[in-house]
Amino acid sequence: MKRRKFIKHLGTGSITAGAALSVPPAVHAKEQVRWKMVTAWPKNFPGLGTNANMLAKTINEMSGGRIKVKVYGAKELVPAFEVFDAVSRGTAEMGHAGAYYWKGKSEAVQFFSSVPFGLTAQEMNAWLYYGGGMDLWRELYDPFGLVPAATGNSGVQMAGWFNREINTVDDLKGLKMRIPGLGGEVLQRAGGTPVTIPGGELFTALQSGTIDATEWVGPYNDLAFGFYKVAKYYYYPGWHEPGTTMECMINKKAFNELPKDLQAIVLTACKAANLDLLAEFTARNNQALEALVNKHNVQLRALPDPVLKKLHDLSNEVVLELADKEPMAKKIYESFSQFRKQVIDWEKVSEQAYLRARTL
Amino acid sequence: MKRRKFIKHLGTGSITAGAALSVPPAVHAKEQVRWKMVTAWPKNFPGLGTNANMLAKTINEMSGGRIKVKVYGAKELVPAFEVFDAVSRGTAEMGHAGAYYWKGKSEAVQFFSSVPFGLTAQEMNAWLYYGGGMDLWRELYDPFGLVPAATGNSGVQMAGWFNREINTVDDLKGLKMRIPGLGGEVLQRAGGTPVTIPGGELFTALQSGTIDATEWVGPYNDLAFGFYKVAKYYYYPGWHEPGTTMECMINKKAFNELPKDLQAIVLTACKAANLDLLAEFTARNNQALEALVNKHNVQLRALPDPVLKKLHDLSNEVVLELADKEPMAKKIYESFSQFRKQVIDWEKVSEQAYLRARTL
Repeated sequence: MKRRKFIKHLGTGSITAGAALSVPPAVHAKEQVRWKMVTAWPKNFPGLGTNANMLAKTINEMSGGRIKVKVYGAKELVPAFEVFDAVSRGTAEMGHAGAYYWKGKSEAVQFFSSVPFGLTAQEMNAWLYYGGGMDLWRELYDPFGLVPAATGNSGVQMAGWFNREINTVDDLKGLKMRIPGLGGEVLQRAGGTPVTIPGGELFTALQSGTIDATEWVGPYNDLAFGFYKVAKYYYYPGWHEPGTTMECMINKKAFNELPKDLQAIVLTACKAANLDLLAEFTARNNQALEALVNKHNVQLRALPDPVLKKLHDLSNEVVLELADKEPMAKKIYESFSQFRKQVIDWEKVSEQAYLRARTL
Repeated sequence: MKRRKFIKHLGTGSITAGAALSVPPAVHAKEQVRWKMVTAWPKNFPGLGTNANMLAKTINEMSGGRIKVKVYGAKELVPAFEVFDAVSRGTAEMGHAGAYYWKGKSEAVQFFSSVPFGLTAQEMNAWLYYGGGMDLWRELYDPFGLVPAATGNSGVQMAGWFNREINTVDDLKGLKMRIPGLGGEVLQRAGGTPVTIPGGELFTALQSGTIDATEWVGPYNDLAFGFYKVAKYYYYPGWHEPGTTMECMINKKAFNELPKDLQAIVLTACKAANLDLLAEFTARNNQALEALVNKHNVQLRALPDPVLKKLHDLSNEVVLELADKEPMAKKIYESFSQFRKQVIDWEKVSEQAYLRARTL
């Protein structure tokens, strides 16, 4: 009703420049800002790619079209692993990826995606927004001319698809498994052989026996890849990525040129998208797991406790060594590990205790 | 930079009404929309009240001041339990509360806050955003002229403060405990006596022995209330409210009068606030629990498994009977309970399995 009245009012005369200058910034924004968002995912990739689309759409809608963000899949504008550099130098204004891809820039980035035996999604968000994590992330990305934001979380990932039974710690010896990053380092210390294979080649590698096992994401994404056709066992829990945060990085110069309201729109859209992706994965993993177990007769297996303990010990070593690689990694590790210690105590009386109680 | 250029351009002439009509809605919005948000919490109440403030601030910022939302504490404009009616009739445009307060309107509302042995925060969001929950919530509130949105979550609440040890199911018999709603019904069936006492009187009631026990929220809120001074034991886990969703209700007529961009701003701000409150509680419960245990020597106790099992069985009864009270309650129960069943299976291989593995 108010809008109609205003439009009617507009019909009676003109707005002078002097009058227009006294109203808030939003009113001035006749120009459209056109931004590019490069992503590390194939265009429309379920979950990760669609989260990027949704983020762009939310920004477009909230800004009434004053910022139009166009999303590019990996390789459309730049390859997946050049997203960081592209946004840093301003080729694109936004990037959607996972921070651990950039460990070549700084080892410390890994704390902002996921580390083995680290934080769950809910704990990550608590650390980022109320435990000092976001400040550290901004400090880390600032020299690269980037403003970071958390924009999604996969939740606890699965341990992966195996063609070898894991009954003891010794069964990890010689295990040829696709598992990148810190998880791979942990496997190596347990006597396994971590290998790097692109997602598109995993199915064949498992089928031919080139690898014994692979981790991927969780039931929703894994079902689509059809791993159940070529692997015997689906192991849980995923100890190596317990709550992987997706990131949206924004070119700092482009961000600073926005009026305050559009800056708030961009950051709030990321926060809403952060919640949304976790909700999507949680709901869809549900359904996919049911299909895997009931329709495709997947053999779900738990990693035995001694194996999990061994992997936990080795993970502590690996993460501690990560902290010693750079001063920023040390600084972030201290905040992260202090938070982790406290939150584990809290979980023992909250989520962990409740989830157990519900299945007694 | 772009803004500066535009302002310079403005100085050279006037914008005619005809030209203005061709630009997006945001540009027209010279008028300010002034909204009132009534809340069920004392002004600035830690967590719940500050979440309402933060929500209003985010809307103000993202809209560049085009919507100014003013927050009112309980009793400032209307009492806590009149928030629903006030927003329904348009006395205020927004309300911030918990849906279970409105069971006098419809028993079904309780599914949208928390039910005993129901969903955790992460699961609730998955059900709401990707499991059909939000559609049902909108359908339920529509006849009241309200648009609902989830705007926060407390996470798993604690079982509460006790001056009686709970070692067996029999110890619940005759237990006089402040526990409202469905949790109270469950306690009654277990032989206890649920009582309703306002928050401000709980400390004295515990101290004087008027009640044997009380639930409240979690360490962060409970520490501030000083319950540790007058109760012997702090029990976990809170089975009665495993992930309580806070709601923002919006007057439908006021919402529909907003241009699309402001509608998107209001709903996205709620979604971001939803994530934010859970992060705040998770981080601050951490710190408060540490203070309670290490500084105030609180005796943390787990409810014994047979007690939890009994409470779970009785909760199933109570929630099933709730479904039979109204057709909408039945419809919502069916969606909720089907989702709950699936998500329990998923949690067994994800969060639940991981949280356990981390503390082996």
